[in-house]
Amino acid sequence: MSMNTKQKGVPFNKVKVQDIFWAPKMKTNRLKTIPANEKQCRETGRLDCFKPDYKGERHYFWDSDVAKWIEAGCYSLATNYDKKLEKTLEKVISDIIKMQQPDGYMNNYFIYVKPEMRWKNLRDCHELYCAGHLMEAAVAHFYATGRRNFLDAMCRYADLICKTFGPGENQLHGYPGHQEIELALVKLYEVTGEKRYLDMACYFINQRGQQPHYYDEEAVKRGDDPKKWWAKTYEYCQAHLPVREQKDAVGHSVRALYMYSGMADCARETDDKELAKACKRLWESVCERQMYITGGIGPSLSNEGFVNDYMLPVENISSESCASIAAIFFCQRMLYLTGEAKYADAMERIMYNSGLSGVSMDGEKFFYSNQLYTYDPDADKKADKKTEFKHYQWDGAALHRQGWYGCSCCPPNIARFIASLPGYIYGTSEDTLWVNLFVGSTTKLNLGGQDVRITQRTRYPWKGKSVFIFSLKKSAVFTVKVRIPSWCQQTSLRVKSLFNEEGPVEEKDGYLCITRKWRKGDQLIYEMDMPIQRVYATTKVRELEGRVALQRGPLVYCLETVDNVTNNLELLSIKQNAKLKGKFDKRILGGVYAITGKALKNVDSDPDGNLYQIKPPRQRVVKFKAVPYYAWDNRRPGSVIVWLREK
Amino acid sequence: MSMNTKQKGVPFNKVKVQDIFWAPKMKTNRLKTIPANEKQCRETGRLDCFKPDYKGERHYFWDSDVAKWIEAGCYSLATNYDKKLEKTLEKVISDIIKMQQPDGYMNNYFIYVKPEMRWKNLRDCHELYCAGHLMEAAVAHFYATGRRNFLDAMCRYADLICKTFGPGENQLHGYPGHQEIELALVKLYEVTGEKRYLDMACYFINQRGQQPHYYDEEAVKRGDDPKKWWAKTYEYCQAHLPVREQKDAVGHSVRALYMYSGMADCARETDDKELAKACKRLWESVCERQMYITGGIGPSLSNEGFVNDYMLPVENISSESCASIAAIFFCQRMLYLTGEAKYADAMERIMYNSGLSGVSMDGEKFFYSNQLYTYDPDADKKADKKTEFKHYQWDGAALHRQGWYGCSCCPPNIARFIASLPGYIYGTSEDTLWVNLFVGSTTKLNLGGQDVRITQRTRYPWKGKSVFIFSLKKSAVFTVKVRIPSWCQQTSLRVKSLFNEEGPVEEKDGYLCITRKWRKGDQLIYEMDMPIQRVYATTKVRELEGRVALQRGPLVYCLETVDNVTNNLELLSIKQNAKLKGKFDKRILGGVYAITGKALKNVDSDPDGNLYQIKPPRQRVVKFKAVPYYAWDNRRPGSVIVWLREK
Repeated sequence: MSMNTKQKGVPFNKVKVQDIFWAPKMKTNRLKTIPANEKQCRETGRLDCFKPDYKGERHYFWDSDVAKWIEAGCYSLATNYDKKLEKTLEKVISDIIKMQQPDGYMNNYFIYVKPEMRWKNLRDCHELYCAGHLMEAAVAHFYATGRRNFLDAMCRYADLICKTFGPGENQLHGYPGHQEIELALVKLYEVTGEKRYLDMACYFINQRGQQPHYYDEEAVKRGDDPKKWWAKTYEYCQAHLPVREQKDAVGHSVRALYMYSGMADCARETDDKELAKACKRLWESVCERQMYITGGIGPSLSNEGFVNDYMLPVENISSESCASIAAIFFCQRMLYLTGEAKYADAMERIMYNSGLSGVSMDGEKFFYSNQLYTYDPDADKKADKKTEFKHYQWDGAALHRQGWYGCSCCPPNIARFIASLPGYIYGTSEDTLWVNLFVGSTTKLNLGGQDVRITQRTRYPWKGKSVFIFSLKKSAVFTVKVRIPSWCQQTSLRVKSLFNEEGPVEEKDGYLCITRKWRKGDQLIYEMDMPIQRVYATTKVRELEGRVALQRGPLVYCLETVDNVTNNLELLSIKQNAKLKGKFDKRILGGVYAITGKALKNVDSDPDGNLYQIKPPRQRVVKFKAVPYYAWDNRRPGSVIVWLREK
Repeated sequence: MSMNTKQKGVPFNKVKVQDIFWAPKMKTNRLKTIPANEKQCRETGRLDCFKPDYKGERHYFWDSDVAKWIEAGCYSLATNYDKKLEKTLEKVISDIIKMQQPDGYMNNYFIYVKPEMRWKNLRDCHELYCAGHLMEAAVAHFYATGRRNFLDAMCRYADLICKTFGPGENQLHGYPGHQEIELALVKLYEVTGEKRYLDMACYFINQRGQQPHYYDEEAVKRGDDPKKWWAKTYEYCQAHLPVREQKDAVGHSVRALYMYSGMADCARETDDKELAKACKRLWESVCERQMYITGGIGPSLSNEGFVNDYMLPVENISSESCASIAAIFFCQRMLYLTGEAKYADAMERIMYNSGLSGVSMDGEKFFYSNQLYTYDPDADKKADKKTEFKHYQWDGAALHRQGWYGCSCCPPNIARFIASLPGYIYGTSEDTLWVNLFVGSTTKLNLGGQDVRITQRTRYPWKGKSVFIFSLKKSAVFTVKVRIPSWCQQTSLRVKSLFNEEGPVEEKDGYLCITRKWRKGDQLIYEMDMPIQRVYATTKVRELEGRVALQRGPLVYCLETVDNVTNNLELLSIKQNAKLKGKFDKRILGGVYAITGKALKNVDSDPDGNLYQIKPPRQRVVKFKAVPYYAWDNRRPGSVIVWLREK
């Protein structure tokens, strides 16, 4: 365990998930999503293109798509062995390894398509980004199978990168245009113990944004005018300033969040307090001023990223699935670095909402962008004189989930996140168990000198109760820290023991902490009050004035066409004092807790339906039904709304 | 007078405007806007580029910018002679004429830059569009000065176009990618009587969108793949279907509205009832289903045009000034074709709102796009931890008016519209005077066999009253038709005569019609009830649910930062029963009628200002002030809102 953390995660392969909510999703991920990603990768040439005799198109970010699929497959293998999947993975991994050049280089596009451009355009060409994803895949492969072939190949590639980049006179002083390799190099360091990989990660972090600017120099060397770059500002890739001087999250959100994760890794591993401070500042910028209620980040489709504090429009937005996943990584690292529950709160918000909305319930369709409001004209049967709807926008902002995208970073990213879910539940520090998430599961840890089996039983997120059952041979003294979710106003924690010994419960950094002597069969019963909540954005968010969202526990709710009287969900408003009822409804998508109540629906007063009218619309009382946001767009296609008008 | 109209316009040079509202604007246009446009044209090379020895950049749409400035200058000369302006215009016109090629061809870009591409890319290159604007300028020059030099040159060019395009075996079967020449050819026909120009206009109209598609064939001939066209669909330039089959206004709005105007011209001149029917259908699509309350059209910045019925977002929209002006042209033609007031109602809505908002009160700055809502972060002094605002959008959607644009079609278009304003006020038909607009003015017409001088006295749009004074030597019987504005619920019309003879007043097609014997000094007193009105959009407009706009007479109102307590105007809402007061306020921009009342301002309940809060915001009562929309952004820069949230 690194000494510079408050908490160390219990890794995914040490936790067995037996959960009513997540276990079925992990199963769908294994049986549907990972095979669907494989199929798409195969059909688009992404798997065959590693072979030298492949004749089709290649793209400079394809390596990363395949790597994420491999990573997902390996996590899944480790928790649920599948012979066929293993065979498929090994074949692809073997093809990838074969592409390795004598000097260690491994990039499909720059080996076969533009070898003369190797390392010539770090700013735009995703070379180091692809390397990072391949490293992450190799580490996952090693953990899942114990085989070193892929890992060794990636170490050789990492060694070439260490030789190529650095402060030396004959080295390139550059860093990735699309960050990712930083956190991957730290993973490689953790598994191999080779400090040069950590140093390389720190070099990329520290060198970023220094003057004279590497991307300027690199562009001039290529014969390009750096001033004519399409993105106009190095804020796009967070290279506008040295990272320690960055105060606001700017630019492309996936780049940003992968980088912040790598920064947190380096801060932890090198005990760099200044870097940790920068991480905290950037986390506040992301999660306290620029995060959607769903956990999505990055509103702008133009830069797939950040625009300004409190700018959170709901329609035609980016809120990319990859950005949510990258934000989960960053929150997890900040949680371990600080031990503060607020990082886990944000992580949970993302996981249960925008992190999960990226994939359909059947596991085979994906959102690239996660809209908080859409109007689907095709679902509007009554629309008068409707002309064909024109999508003047990029397919990434599609109204409904799709099987794949031209730029298909999100589908395999979602797959690897869900497969790795067991790794987010628990943490440990000296003689302490940290409960970060409420997921039915079992894990074994050494606590108080004893091997302890911990079983968590819960119906979360439908019910706000978790029971922890401790199984150990001899009694032992240790601490259990249970997170108090930020959505929760009232908790109770009690011990059920044959010996009726409670223990002093203390609240610290958003956790309830109890230290006592635990005996076999002792139970810790944790109850979180989980009413339906109305949530309002601060009045600084100009897009959300006069609007309310519904939330229960970690779940944000939405209305969709299929459950409601209209496809134009903006017609509906709810009164501030309207009664809201909730119940678990088995008929909806295998069971979700749904919220119902009465809304007001606007109806034209003018019988001619003139475009502009002098009389205000009348309001008709109608029933409405809201379902968890993650579950939308899984039944009849239609519109969606999260932030309702409040009357 | 063409026989196929209900009404013929009284041209701009037959009407003397003496109006408290428009006369100062025409003066500013003459003294400031036209010179400012000249200066910009000169500084950017647009005037010098007609000379063969000019060395700078040229652009394929520059001819049209200069042509519109000349047209504006000529209208202005005709109503207010200015020797210096005449001299400047003659010099530029002489340079333009000198560029004419032996065969009659006149296009600065295709003569000097890409002569080999002449007529090779009608779809994209604005060649016929530029020709149209030069023709309009030449016609205006002839009317203003009586000189034929420019007109003759343009007739030679028109003759070349008539020879080049048409159904013949050796002719090109094409038509303009950017329509405009159709209406210009009809003007050329009207001034010369040469029917071939009318026939050419009708050919362009009728050939459009026929199969096999000219743009496909033309692209293949150039060696381009027509499928790879950036705009993806010929809807962009309304060439997706033959025009008679078009039911919905689609694509680029300026192209569309110029074409519809040309269609109405051809329908009128050739008594083509089918074409007239198509015009009516398209007018309904534009004005009854896709027009902003301000008269703006075309919400999308992607295609600078239409998207879908009832899709009227308020921010980051196109609503281009040129589109408003083109829509004025179309409405005017439909009014003359049908004699129905609804066309004048729409025309008036555009003129007093989006048509006028395009230019600053000082006459020197212009909006390309006319937003109905903006948030200007630079005006927000209290913004917490504000990062630099990033405009990820094209400069055409700027938050404030600018002196010029790279693509600067709008500034000279606004100039020619304001200079031509006198031509929109009156119409005539046999022994009938039509009053279409309420503008203080004088005109002389032959009515009932007598020369009649009509003087209109009014304080419109500030007061809903117009007095018409008739001056004639002998008494005469004729009809006066006065429009009942659609905004008006209550009118009264009475005659003031020494002989106390009223006359029967009849309502027809939205006009009050009175036929009687008129004597010298008789007055017609028309009163239009003009209260402050709350206006609602039909509930089909999903962007405007729960919102209200304020209107008085033809003027739509807005709130801007300078008059109100906050720069975030979305914080404000007004109650449906809130009292609204109005008064003419001389201190605001030389005098406007302002509306005041009480609004509710949202204030965070959570003292920490957390991004998401459980308690609803509190509401503080504040005063608000609204000013006419056209007048916004003329004082301290800030935000604007038209559609307020209603409580």
